[in-house]
Amino acid sequence: MALIVQKFGGTSVANPEKIKAVAARVMGYSRQGHKVVVVLSAMAGETNRLISLATEVQEQPDTREMDVLLSSGEQVTVALFAMAVKAAGQEAVSLLGDQVKIITDTMHTKARIKSIDTEPITRHLAAGKIVVVAGFQGVTDDLDITTLGRGGSDTTAVALAAALKADQCEIYTDVEGVYTTDPNICSSARKIDRISYDEMLELASLGAKVLDIRSVGFAKRYKVPVHVRSTFTEAVGTLVVEEDKDMESMLVSGVTYNKNEARITLSKVQDVPGVASKIFTPISDAGIVVDMIIQNTRAGEMTDMTFTVPRTDYKKAMSIVQDIVAEIGAGDVTGSEQIAKVSIVGVGMRNHSGIATTMFRILAEEGINIQMISTSEIKVSCVIDEKYTELAVRSLHDGFGLHQTGQSV
Amino acid sequence: MALIVQKFGGTSVANPEKIKAVAARVMGYSRQGHKVVVVLSAMAGETNRLISLATEVQEQPDTREMDVLLSSGEQVTVALFAMAVKAAGQEAVSLLGDQVKIITDTMHTKARIKSIDTEPITRHLAAGKIVVVAGFQGVTDDLDITTLGRGGSDTTAVALAAALKADQCEIYTDVEGVYTTDPNICSSARKIDRISYDEMLELASLGAKVLDIRSVGFAKRYKVPVHVRSTFTEAVGTLVVEEDKDMESMLVSGVTYNKNEARITLSKVQDVPGVASKIFTPISDAGIVVDMIIQNTRAGEMTDMTFTVPRTDYKKAMSIVQDIVAEIGAGDVTGSEQIAKVSIVGVGMRNHSGIATTMFRILAEEGINIQMISTSEIKVSCVIDEKYTELAVRSLHDGFGLHQTGQSV
Repeated sequence: MALIVQKFGGTSVANPEKIKAVAARVMGYSRQGHKVVVVLSAMAGETNRLISLATEVQEQPDTREMDVLLSSGEQVTVALFAMAVKAAGQEAVSLLGDQVKIITDTMHTKARIKSIDTEPITRHLAAGKIVVVAGFQGVTDDLDITTLGRGGSDTTAVALAAALKADQCEIYTDVEGVYTTDPNICSSARKIDRISYDEMLELASLGAKVLDIRSVGFAKRYKVPVHVRSTFTEAVGTLVVEEDKDMESMLVSGVTYNKNEARITLSKVQDVPGVASKIFTPISDAGIVVDMIIQNTRAGEMTDMTFTVPRTDYKKAMSIVQDIVAEIGAGDVTGSEQIAKVSIVGVGMRNHSGIATTMFRILAEEGINIQMISTSEIKVSCVIDEKYTELAVRSLHDGFGLHQTGQSV
Repeated sequence: MALIVQKFGGTSVANPEKIKAVAARVMGYSRQGHKVVVVLSAMAGETNRLISLATEVQEQPDTREMDVLLSSGEQVTVALFAMAVKAAGQEAVSLLGDQVKIITDTMHTKARIKSIDTEPITRHLAAGKIVVVAGFQGVTDDLDITTLGRGGSDTTAVALAAALKADQCEIYTDVEGVYTTDPNICSSARKIDRISYDEMLELASLGAKVLDIRSVGFAKRYKVPVHVRSTFTEAVGTLVVEEDKDMESMLVSGVTYNKNEARITLSKVQDVPGVASKIFTPISDAGIVVDMIIQNTRAGEMTDMTFTVPRTDYKKAMSIVQDIVAEIGAGDVTGSEQIAKVSIVGVGMRNHSGIATTMFRILAEEGINIQMISTSEIKVSCVIDEKYTELAVRSLHDGFGLHQTGQSV
């Protein structure tokens, strides 16, 4: 008799047939005696349809109204899902953001959850109902509808699991779990059975799409065990849990890559206090998020400054930097959109030296030049020429033994 | 400087282009200094799309969940409409049923409004915003979403106008107003400039679709002047207002017809107390709504009983009646689905005798046999053979002088 929160994404509830199939699966858990809270996204395609209607009406849609608009998508799925459960003879009730009282701040289209009132859910659960909650949405203190941003339904599920002190939060998706790397480019990629919150955070921030990064942060803070698994099979997926001894014995848990960045280099920058601020303030003011920043000292009073920005912001960033260069009297500006960031992640790095060196050696053996390096306690990222991405991922994956169940370097 | 409530139906907001066009029209009133509250229906087709999704999931959709589902349609239009206003540089805010606090009873899919909190609307109006309210929806005291039934957005608009003590409630539609009869079958049909609440109530109950009958009842009770007019022209439409001298001088205001009924006759019924109850209780228990009932006394202790039911319920009603006939020892049962109810409506009837007689004479002159007659203070209805419907309507329309601006019989 457990309390389980189960989240199903848009492809799992894309049409009435799929909704009925998912309802049947959920009812199976309920019949086993578990209390089940289901969190749903909008039907696949619906959010994009609504966004497209909005942009036809207003080029930059008003964010408050956008939230009113988009939240209707989840409203449709929870109503249909509750009907499907009732049609099959069990009790269910749908609840929207204002009914669960998922109170958020007022940052429309990317709101953060401030509090959740568990009373309505526990009351319905106690009455033997499957509770169907609209993901992705909340309300402000003034009852204005808010949404949590793309991937927000994951956050709703984990936040509900935390608030309800659920035994488990299951995130159903169209893959079987979290993989050691992208199976599309590396055939030896394996499903990971257990992964720590910190590793999952790094993987999510590096571009793994299976779990929204905020939901992982939530899960870590409230110690919610998250089970990422497939909607279409009964197989056990990946458990995202607190770090344990077994994980530490793994040097590297996963290899990831990101082709959505571009690199900009300013050479011969005056190495004086305040110069970094002069460069990055106007970029940040333009709403451009800088990822990696690397400063190399040159001989004398000159330095080189290299950083990466989202590829979509590359042209804008370049034009800002051109202006700055003249102002601060730097040398020339170069850049490239043909880069990729390849990363290895693993909590085992904390206690083992030489992981980064091994990464550099593996890349060197393949003749891949490293343009930038950035490290954290449990991650090493290298920026390389984009054309070597797949080669680098495969070499690192197998080089760190991730193709085997046990790991050996 | 008036306070106007304007309601636009689904065909007026069927796509982004039309939403922008309606927004432009509304903004015109706002720029003239009027305070405007807009009530919107779902985009044309959307409600049917949602109903069809629901019935794919559950044959008889749960009514609570149906309301959650259907109310999403209006949520989409109000958000898009507010965006359209903002895109054109004016301020607007969308409000849903729970935000306006349109509190209803708990009769899902056909809820009745209990109260409206005008504070949120007046606050936004005072801030210079166009307030865009989702029609058709409300919430129970427990914040469950309810809907008011088909045509419910008219009710929302009139109820808001009443609560806000608005100067006028404008119902925008795809026709130019209320007509003396259906222009599709009578080319001399004219738009009515002014009509009383009571006449409008009769016309709506007799099948005129231009205004929902509950909204007319609301308008009458709270003396809300309703202006039925076209979305597509600036022309003045029909004012639905309190009865005045001019209206009384009109003997007949409109001719209407209804082809959706069927007739059932029980002959040689024992004329003893309780027999009517024995006939109509099982019919009512089956959820069938009986419209007209006529009992003719025969010689002796026998009577004939004739009544009409919705044509869709004809077979069910016939089978129920067959059983009753055996039980109460009546004669035979006959019936017909090929009937039509033709009616004339006018407050002038109150003070003029002979209107009904004129109606019978006009029908007789066309050789049309009358099967049933039913009258109210301001209405006479005759059931005739369906094939004479158009002929009867045209003859009555012109016979009562409705083809002329002034009226003469």
